[in-house]
Amino acid sequence: MKKAVIIFSGGQDSTTCLYWARNHFDEIEAITFNYGQKHSIELECSKQICKKNNIKQTIIDISFLNTIVESALISNGNVNKLNSKGLPDSFVPNRNQLFITLAHSYAQKIGAESLITGTCETDFSGYPDCRRIFIDSIEIASNLGSQSNIQILTPLMYLNKAETFELADSLGYLDEIINESHTCYNGDREHLHEWGFGCDNCPACDLRKKGFYEFKNLYNENN
Amino acid sequence: MKKAVIIFSGGQDSTTCLYWARNHFDEIEAITFNYGQKHSIELECSKQICKKNNIKQTIIDISFLNTIVESALISNGNVNKLNSKGLPDSFVPNRNQLFITLAHSYAQKIGAESLITGTCETDFSGYPDCRRIFIDSIEIASNLGSQSNIQILTPLMYLNKAETFELADSLGYLDEIINESHTCYNGDREHLHEWGFGCDNCPACDLRKKGFYEFKNLYNENN
Repeated sequence: MKKAVIIFSGGQDSTTCLYWARNHFDEIEAITFNYGQKHSIELECSKQICKKNNIKQTIIDISFLNTIVESALISNGNVNKLNSKGLPDSFVPNRNQLFITLAHSYAQKIGAESLITGTCETDFSGYPDCRRIFIDSIEIASNLGSQSNIQILTPLMYLNKAETFELADSLGYLDEIINESHTCYNGDREHLHEWGFGCDNCPACDLRKKGFYEFKNLYNENN
Repeated sequence: MKKAVIIFSGGQDSTTCLYWARNHFDEIEAITFNYGQKHSIELECSKQICKKNNIKQTIIDISFLNTIVESALISNGNVNKLNSKGLPDSFVPNRNQLFITLAHSYAQKIGAESLITGTCETDFSGYPDCRRIFIDSIEIASNLGSQSNIQILTPLMYLNKAETFELADSLGYLDEIINESHTCYNGDREHLHEWGFGCDNCPACDLRKKGFYEFKNLYNENN
């Protein structure tokens, strides 16, 4: 019986991973982090997707994160700006590491041999904790520190957004990704475009939209 | 201006590190984790020590940890037993990793170049996340994931409890360690022994007591 824990936000990437995981594991459980994001809409989307797919979801409140880190995404600031380190203001230091650390604990608890995250270094966006070299490093540390042998799978690591849409399509879940997953930094869930809901005016929407039309062009060329 | 963050529980080891750090840094800040331990007495001790020494202390509530891990120390169970992995029941999976991940975030926030933890592999107690190889590994991962260069210092790593008492003595703070720091798993703060407060009947008290008398014998032989 193959069991996996998926770090699941309700965004496009982790939702694609969730459908991918259904093809590769007998049982999956979702772990979702609530860290006082400006918009709770992504969290709501994640709940609906888990409910619909009958996947057990554990939501961990880590809103204390606000007290120890500074970032535009969870407090005040401009999500487009670069900070003094040359990293985007939306970068939350050690966020991915925290997610993986806790999900790895949970995987130990339920006896899962794999941990899945939608982390991707292609659309790097300047986040150093999205690279595979970081994932390799934290995988080793986590297993070393707990005498475990849990592999961290990153099915989207080398895919760009167009290829992520293509993966969803090949899994037969393109409509679900477009209609159910959330991406927009501004929490816009009113305006539905061909590529999904969003404000069409933030870096996250830009990436999603651009990726969708690249995917469409590729698809049309090949069919 | 050399600045450090210390992971500070109020126990013997981290209290010794705190006094050690005062000799090595211009400024130190303490970060303390509250994770629903059975006894809040250690937390109280930590507050008193910081207050007395005029050290800024940030207390992070991570009691949510209870919902994702299983361990005798924070829920029900026997602190002396071994679990199915051959690890002590009191082992909290990824606890040290979580502490370091959050303290590393905090160090980035305040611009500290060092992170100090009382982690020690000598009195190993079967905790794999107390070994230097784990610390090396999480140090690399944390810095890689955040483009930082924060060193993790473990002044007690290769000291046994007797040598930790000796270090406190050489720093001129033996009395403080004995009277102010807390060790006992059963939260006993009523019975004062030559080696400190404790129930004198749990593995933590045993280690502390044994270490103290070893230190005393060494001291008497050398003086």
